[in-house]
Amino acid sequence: MGLVYVGASKHNWGSTFVQELMSALVALIVQKYGGTSVGSIERIKAVAERVARRRAKGDHIVVVVSAMAGETNRLFQLAEQLCEVPSARETDVLVATGEQVSAALLAIRLQALGYPTVSFLGHQLKLTTDSHHGAAKIKSVESGRIQAALDQGNIVVVAGYQGVDLQGDITTLGRGASDLTAVALAAVMNAVACEIYTDVDGVYTADPRICPQARRLDRISYDEMLEMAGLGAKVLQLRSVELARRFNVPLVVLSSFSDDARGTWVGQEDSSMENVLVSGVTLDQNQSKITLTGVDDRPGLAARIFGPIAEAGIIVDMIIQNASADGRTDMTFTVPRTDLRRALELVREVAGEIGAAGIRHEDQVAKVSIIGVGMRTHAGVAATMFKVLAAERVNIEMIATSEIKVSVVVNAKYGELAMRALHDTFLGNGTNAAKAETV
Amino acid sequence: MGLVYVGASKHNWGSTFVQELMSALVALIVQKYGGTSVGSIERIKAVAERVARRRAKGDHIVVVVSAMAGETNRLFQLAEQLCEVPSARETDVLVATGEQVSAALLAIRLQALGYPTVSFLGHQLKLTTDSHHGAAKIKSVESGRIQAALDQGNIVVVAGYQGVDLQGDITTLGRGASDLTAVALAAVMNAVACEIYTDVDGVYTADPRICPQARRLDRISYDEMLEMAGLGAKVLQLRSVELARRFNVPLVVLSSFSDDARGTWVGQEDSSMENVLVSGVTLDQNQSKITLTGVDDRPGLAARIFGPIAEAGIIVDMIIQNASADGRTDMTFTVPRTDLRRALELVREVAGEIGAAGIRHEDQVAKVSIIGVGMRTHAGVAATMFKVLAAERVNIEMIATSEIKVSVVVNAKYGELAMRALHDTFLGNGTNAAKAETV
Repeated sequence: MGLVYVGASKHNWGSTFVQELMSALVALIVQKYGGTSVGSIERIKAVAERVARRRAKGDHIVVVVSAMAGETNRLFQLAEQLCEVPSARETDVLVATGEQVSAALLAIRLQALGYPTVSFLGHQLKLTTDSHHGAAKIKSVESGRIQAALDQGNIVVVAGYQGVDLQGDITTLGRGASDLTAVALAAVMNAVACEIYTDVDGVYTADPRICPQARRLDRISYDEMLEMAGLGAKVLQLRSVELARRFNVPLVVLSSFSDDARGTWVGQEDSSMENVLVSGVTLDQNQSKITLTGVDDRPGLAARIFGPIAEAGIIVDMIIQNASADGRTDMTFTVPRTDLRRALELVREVAGEIGAAGIRHEDQVAKVSIIGVGMRTHAGVAATMFKVLAAERVNIEMIATSEIKVSVVVNAKYGELAMRALHDTFLGNGTNAAKAETV
Repeated sequence: MGLVYVGASKHNWGSTFVQELMSALVALIVQKYGGTSVGSIERIKAVAERVARRRAKGDHIVVVVSAMAGETNRLFQLAEQLCEVPSARETDVLVATGEQVSAALLAIRLQALGYPTVSFLGHQLKLTTDSHHGAAKIKSVESGRIQAALDQGNIVVVAGYQGVDLQGDITTLGRGASDLTAVALAAVMNAVACEIYTDVDGVYTADPRICPQARRLDRISYDEMLEMAGLGAKVLQLRSVELARRFNVPLVVLSSFSDDARGTWVGQEDSSMENVLVSGVTLDQNQSKITLTGVDDRPGLAARIFGPIAEAGIIVDMIIQNASADGRTDMTFTVPRTDLRRALELVREVAGEIGAAGIRHEDQVAKVSIIGVGMRTHAGVAATMFKVLAAERVNIEMIATSEIKVSVVVNAKYGELAMRALHDTFLGNGTNAAKAETV
């Protein structure tokens, strides 16, 4: 056993008070390892080595693990062989085993390396959620059991993705939500950082598979990361970034496959970030567009159209309404391409009731976005974006903006071209080509 | 939802009081399905059909499941790849997932068949154990959550083999202990019976692989079953039979692979059982024999010899001491063959200290036993046994008896011959050949 204290490891302090005091002076790090990072016995060994090295330096460590890559899908498929729509409660009991297995295996390996370790499951930490099985929201987490285990010198390994509702039923937090478990624990334990280990070495200015010139960002603000996560960058789960922002937990995205400790730091915006106009370019190719033509331009109409779509759980992203002189209007909006057929059915029902002239749809559209907190203080970014696209002869079908983002919808076949052109302009050649002062 | 009441299914009783009253009038059955019974998606479907048919008749059902065949070994092997001797606490976290998966899958299938079902894990039932991970003893079980679920018309599926200690750590009850979970629940819920479904259709008079004339027993007493389980019949776990006897829970051993509902009933001895001299013949081929020769015949010697062996966790089965006229004696005892080497090392250390003349050992011995409550009231069974073995020219090396059992140790090569000869004599030709009145 024995605690490792910074500068105190040779002393036998003995007293619990002193132990707790010293323990409080040691930094606490939360690390989260995703499914590919713990995807095999060899990978689990590598993760254990990494955790052990950090522990040996004196830090206290709480490790959150996902299920081994492929395991969650395997379990879902077993359930689907038994029932077309398996009950959410029992599916949660089933799939929560994936993280339980990873947590136990990592703890076993850390013990084999000589590090006292204990694993905890959601119900053991009273990681309490609502009863929305499959996508439960965290209500509270108790820090007591983790703190006691850390005070005794343990590494703590926690099964991610799972919680327990007030009845004691097992819940899961949604796909990718082990990130959320890690951030919640970092918040409640006052960790100095929450390190998210994955199969890439950080957050990139664009998807490197499409944009070869994309490069890793050293730093990015919560707000930019939220836009990037919402716009299709998959490196961090959206809700976990929101939670990190709310509790001001610094996130660090790192690769578990390399020893490069740089990664991308995600935290509060500071003034230096404003000098960077654009931090990233994203491309969302799962988009489609629906237009209702000749609609009466009167109050309440939007509610009539979008109410049923929202009830069906379809997420409407961009909405544009072109008011016209004759009191009639065209209304255009985007939905995920996979939901187009269902959305069209709902719109057709409403179209008759509200006397629309017609319905058009287009399933081959893409959304290209530029994101950067520098836009808050510097004008002209959107104008530059439109000029670049015009020069490439890419027609813009829709535009939506926020304080730190400009998104355009274009024909899907121009999506990748548009992304590369915008990346070249704003982020090209390994330097930030369009710094604030050059626009 | 809707409760199924015997003779009351068309009425809408409404009131909770009446529901509880009617519920109390319906029989409660605990069923347990072993690993091969839930070993595949197809097998789980078959088990669900069986449970559903029983529920449709009106009975309330609590189903206890083991892990899918092979899963527990797979999990143990994962752990062994990470650590030579994985910690018992973390191994329990790991292997408990096997039963969790089976329980969720069976619940999902029962729901697909239209039967309201909920699954529970050990910690959800407060199936509290001591902290002896890997072989924990049950201290208590709460019936409240199961009863509430049954009162609401649910089938209840419980993950076997697992519990939780007072700290909230997951424990397991030892290999084969899903039987124990089932008996414990049957006891606390006052079930009318605990049905153990397995891959054979009952308890046999002998192992049919060795003794082709072996036949299924319709009824057997707890005491006989305990002797048979202790002597190598693997159909029921020893501790579960002890618990069933203590709480007078009738056990029924049945096949999950056939629709034959007969099986073997295990319960309290009654007078009719006494007419059957021998209920079964067992053969234990994992035996070895150690003899200490020329030992001083004085008090305290047995403790000197067997103390260290017991401390090493080696189970000594039979002990025979031949007192001699010159104040010296030979002491012979049996240990499992797999423990022979370790036992010999311990005996060699003691042999010098106590001045024994020599040590002999024999690793090719087998133990053949006949079991029957009829022996309590009828003499001459042992004599018949010895005559049968003499006729086959099988030399008896050791003899041990209890009220309802006679065991002999013979050379291993005669084990199967001895078993068949005894079965022919006492249980041959499909009838009980040696009924009390014929001896």
